[in-house]
Amino acid sequence: MIFSSDNWAGASAPVSEALTRHASGLVPAYGNDPLTDAVTRRFSQIFERDVAVFFVATGTAANALALSAYARPGGVIFSHQSAHIQVDECGAPEYFTGGGKLRGLPGANGKIDPADLIRLMGEHPDGNPMHGQVSAVSISQATECGTVYRPDEIRALAEAAHARGIPLHMDGARFANAVAFLGLSPAEVTWKAGVDVLSFGATKNGCWCAEAVIFFNPDSALQFAYLRKRAGHLFSKSRFAAAQFEGYLADGHWLANAGHANAMARRLAQGLEAAGNRLAWPVEANEVFPVLSRATIARLRAAGALFYEWPADGVDPDQSAVRLVASFATDPADVDRFVAVAAG
Amino acid sequence: MIFSSDNWAGASAPVSEALTRHASGLVPAYGNDPLTDAVTRRFSQIFERDVAVFFVATGTAANALALSAYARPGGVIFSHQSAHIQVDECGAPEYFTGGGKLRGLPGANGKIDPADLIRLMGEHPDGNPMHGQVSAVSISQATECGTVYRPDEIRALAEAAHARGIPLHMDGARFANAVAFLGLSPAEVTWKAGVDVLSFGATKNGCWCAEAVIFFNPDSALQFAYLRKRAGHLFSKSRFAAAQFEGYLADGHWLANAGHANAMARRLAQGLEAAGNRLAWPVEANEVFPVLSRATIARLRAAGALFYEWPADGVDPDQSAVRLVASFATDPADVDRFVAVAAG
Amino acid sequence: MIFSSDNWAGASAPVSEALTRHASGLVPAYGNDPLTDAVTRRFSQIFERDVAVFFVATGTAANALALSAYARPGGVIFSHQSAHIQVDECGAPEYFTGGGKLRGLPGANGKIDPADLIRLMGEHPDGNPMHGQVSAVSISQATECGTVYRPDEIRALAEAAHARGIPLHMDGARFANAVAFLGLSPAEVTWKAGVDVLSFGATKNGCWCAEAVIFFNPDSALQFAYLRKRAGHLFSKSRFAAAQFEGYLADGHWLANAGHANAMARRLAQGLEAAGNRLAWPVEANEVFPVLSRATIARLRAAGALFYEWPADGVDPDQSAVRLVASFATDPADVDRFVAVAAG
Amino acid sequence: MIFSSDNWAGASAPVSEALTRHASGLVPAYGNDPLTDAVTRRFSQIFERDVAVFFVATGTAANALALSAYARPGGVIFSHQSAHIQVDECGAPEYFTGGGKLRGLPGANGKIDPADLIRLMGEHPDGNPMHGQVSAVSISQATECGTVYRPDEIRALAEAAHARGIPLHMDGARFANAVAFLGLSPAEVTWKAGVDVLSFGATKNGCWCAEAVIFFNPDSALQFAYLRKRAGHLFSKSRFAAAQFEGYLADGHWLANAGHANAMARRLAQGLEAAGNRLAWPVEANEVFPVLSRATIARLRAAGALFYEWPADGVDPDQSAVRLVASFATDPADVDRFVAVAAG
Repeated sequence: MIFSSDNWAGASAPVSEALTRHASGLVPAYGNDPLTDAVTRRFSQIFERDVAVFFVATGTAANALALSAYARPGGVIFSHQSAHIQVDECGAPEYFTGGGKLRGLPGANGKIDPADLIRLMGEHPDGNPMHGQVSAVSISQATECGTVYRPDEIRALAEAAHARGIPLHMDGARFANAVAFLGLSPAEVTWKAGVDVLSFGATKNGCWCAEAVIFFNPDSALQFAYLRKRAGHLFSKSRFAAAQFEGYLADGHWLANAGHANAMARRLAQGLEAAGNRLAWPVEANEVFPVLSRATIARLRAAGALFYEWPADGVDPDQSAVRLVASFATDPADVDRFVAVAAG
Repeated sequence: MIFSSDNWAGASAPVSEALTRHASGLVPAYGNDPLTDAVTRRFSQIFERDVAVFFVATGTAANALALSAYARPGGVIFSHQSAHIQVDECGAPEYFTGGGKLRGLPGANGKIDPADLIRLMGEHPDGNPMHGQVSAVSISQATECGTVYRPDEIRALAEAAHARGIPLHMDGARFANAVAFLGLSPAEVTWKAGVDVLSFGATKNGCWCAEAVIFFNPDSALQFAYLRKRAGHLFSKSRFAAAQFEGYLADGHWLANAGHANAMARRLAQGLEAAGNRLAWPVEANEVFPVLSRATIARLRAAGALFYEWPADGVDPDQSAVRLVASFATDPADVDRFVAVAAG
Repeated sequence: MIFSSDNWAGASAPVSEALTRHASGLVPAYGNDPLTDAVTRRFSQIFERDVAVFFVATGTAANALALSAYARPGGVIFSHQSAHIQVDECGAPEYFTGGGKLRGLPGANGKIDPADLIRLMGEHPDGNPMHGQVSAVSISQATECGTVYRPDEIRALAEAAHARGIPLHMDGARFANAVAFLGLSPAEVTWKAGVDVLSFGATKNGCWCAEAVIFFNPDSALQFAYLRKRAGHLFSKSRFAAAQFEGYLADGHWLANAGHANAMARRLAQGLEAAGNRLAWPVEANEVFPVLSRATIARLRAAGALFYEWPADGVDPDQSAVRLVASFATDPADVDRFVAVAAG
Repeated sequence: MIFSSDNWAGASAPVSEALTRHASGLVPAYGNDPLTDAVTRRFSQIFERDVAVFFVATGTAANALALSAYARPGGVIFSHQSAHIQVDECGAPEYFTGGGKLRGLPGANGKIDPADLIRLMGEHPDGNPMHGQVSAVSISQATECGTVYRPDEIRALAEAAHARGIPLHMDGARFANAVAFLGLSPAEVTWKAGVDVLSFGATKNGCWCAEAVIFFNPDSALQFAYLRKRAGHLFSKSRFAAAQFEGYLADGHWLANAGHANAMARRLAQGLEAAGNRLAWPVEANEVFPVLSRATIARLRAAGALFYEWPADGVDPDQSAVRLVASFATDPADVDRFVAVAAG
């Protein structure tokens, strides 16, 4: 009953097999190998346009380096106040953007509201160096609350960003879960809705170390090879990052993995709601945030369940919200047992 | 006949098998898993003292972050002018040290001389902010010329560095090759000779992505967890970096791999020398730098051999030095064929 | 009727005369001149202990460089949400601290509350790199609301900071106004109350370019000469910064200037309150924040008065808070005329 | 007999008077005052085209920030190995360019040779992130050897830089001395010869703190207001920087000051040469580098002369080169006495 995080899971079989399949043989280093080329072309197919693709080692690197490609002196980056870039990355976005300021916005269900965004960006008018300058807007898809932006929501934020001359970045650490939930094409939820650059995360969903920064306008990526190398994120044996993506993207495996995780989250949510527990936010991707009594939490922990308590609004003193994360590796039996123990 | 680089090789069988062995199961993320713990302890055994161990994604990251742990404002880092940190890392050391200046020293066989080092450090006396301040000395082991520092050579440089209050860093991208050549314990060629921090590289020698920064004085590492995370180099699924090291370090596999590479280099060297070719530098690790006639080079390329030309002194206009790198995966038949083609 | 800012004023006579007095003659550069030495000693007298003193060009530089002396990777700096370092310095503190994150606290009258501070620092527990690490607390004295911290208020914040192992920085852009208001010694409102480092501002109060970073524990300043030079803030002709301080600190001139500014602010406040206007915050230093009707504001502007509107809570739609700043150069006749026009 | 440096001199009378003249009155802060505007227009007159002008506090800031306006990740900046940015600025250029690498070129008389520059830039071909990328060329005018680039020499370097898509920066700490020597217009020795950005230094030649970064193509300066503010180099009371330039630039005062300094240097050189002393480099601006016997040096020091020994080639063991710097404030009597003492 481990629901601590989807990055507690390992590598799924097609990914693991791809690593083994490409283990031998001598091929060019630093991304000049045929497999890296093939995977890059595969991304262009998936996104239905030419994209610039850069593998990096972690999601933190993907986010921080993607934002650094648009950095400006005195730059200000806007995101939800619960965003991973705000609270979980040890200042990496600030560091790689040369001291960028991250301003957090409130917003229901982990999403930012265009009106709030426009108002806050307004505190940084163009041409006044004192207050710095707007430099990027970043959203998480799925969000840190387990919800998923709809294309029109993304488009509204993109328009607000573009009206100020800045890009919309999408932190897609759980991009597959969002796509699987929406049932739309990757293109529809990204560049067709105005996204400029995407952190395409695969690690949480079945790879061991596979993150890609994807620029939908390759012109914006002209300096990125240097930004990545300077940060120590150019793999010498790039083929192994590529191999993971090969396995991950083949035959819809990535969406199958995400679909399983999402289904496990729904199953958790339905079971917990049926037993009378409130959910802090709607369950759309692979995360569930039930509000549980402290007694229930204690009972679950005694039974060996692993999960984190989580901040949420409107929670009574004898309760706590908790975060339950399902992954491609989640066993339905674990879900059912968790629900049963929670029911008491 | 691929002698372009040791990072054109893939993953050796024990490393690849360890990745597969640990692919399933749910374990804590971000390095809090049992395997990461076990590998860390293994490093302490290998080095015969408690060491602080940090996995990172690349050798560039290992070097730059290791140096950043000792950064000072206006800091100056001293290394051989041919060092990887000087010429091949896109300014990563400068970037992560907040604008450190890298000063390159000449020196025979890719090694720096203590007297030269002391003289150059003297241009940055303590207490004069104009000229900056000394902050680290870095050596490559094996060197970029394929040679290997002896313990007393290391000790002399360490003493010069310590006399100025700064650490000695060792870029061990080919550390295994150096240890295999010397036949000494890892402790003898590192901290017992005065090394403070080591970039322990395993990628070139049979892993796909396994680099560790090793601090011999753990007190110096107190901020490193933050430096690494801020740089996006904390793996969420740390177990897979650990798994590679598990396979790499078990049963002397790492030294066996390096021993094979070194032997292949010697075989190349002996064959080429027997045919009357001069070597630019002594062959001690897994790199060979013969000076070949342009006709020989053309003949080798026509036969399908891959390698890079390399700058070296004292080369006639109708000649060029070339770099030949052997790896754990080098086939002796390829070596013999290369020698035969070169002989004409 | 110019109440836009105290940095619209020029240089007061003793400061200007000191500049002229030291204009000729050849003296050592880069702070090695006798006048710089003398002024440094004068600061130690004023603060009743040995202090380390560094002139820099601007208040922004003083704040950002002071904080950089205590920077940590992933560091988080805490201040009031209205602090100058938060909103008016174009990311300089973030930049010079290598990507530090500035977290803003609410708090009545521009002051932060120790309980709030402790709670917010608690979101960054030691040893968890994801969330970064606490690195400094910064307060403004006088505050951006024109109020002044009392020594016991400072002490409580210092204790909270020190309990987490981080320093208390004081942005003293209007330090003289605060000291003049409190009628206490400079020592009592700084290190005796727990302040570790002070941005001692003199520019707003009668100098043209005279700011000093003052370390109360000189050991903390060991790297500061390098931090300053690397930032381009070491004056070659340091004597002229020193000369300004000589004139400023002689014969209590600095406190006389501040006392005049404070008195003009009180006179403004009393006149406006007598006419029925509310003040957003108490008037303690040289700034007044009346809430005026839009009609009054229009009448004042029509009469030539210059000032900025200012955000404040609880203001009706037909009103606005405005900021009125008095300086050493404020003419009482201007004050009285402003009050008269405001009264209608 | 003080010849240590031209920044040991104070402020010349017209500069000092301008500071006093503008000391009173209330004017807008942060460069929005009429005097700053007027001085900016004055610079456009002097340079015969619209230029973008930014005052900063020091020459180090001017150089480092000017270069930062053209920074690229992994960027490499080329200059003479004796350049101030290389040896005397505590890593400020590296810091403000985000870890730029400064490569030093040899070259006779403190000047770099286009062929050498092209060759060294060739080590950083476009499109190879490992080796970083070229980002700027910087020359000093006058050079650190006291010599002056001719327009055709500048043009050749500018063409080499522009051919690689990078700008030519001129460190004009002693720009006035160079212009006075050449007898050409400021335009002819800058943008008409291909210079893109100039650090226009006035401090050494009669101001106390007046440095300007001048962009000849204002489009390149669009981010500079933010770069400057973020570095803490935007003066709140900008009028005082402007006032110095007003006095400095009026009635040819700046060239008169420089002409005096140059004449004093020539007088020194002629006297020393007449007594049989060799000069390390030609005397063109306000610096003289005679090679003196140690006995002569001792005799001069005993007589109270102040100056620095300086590295130079081809100096016998019983000799040393010394640097003698004349300024606007140099007294001919001091020159003559120095020559007489040196003559023995």
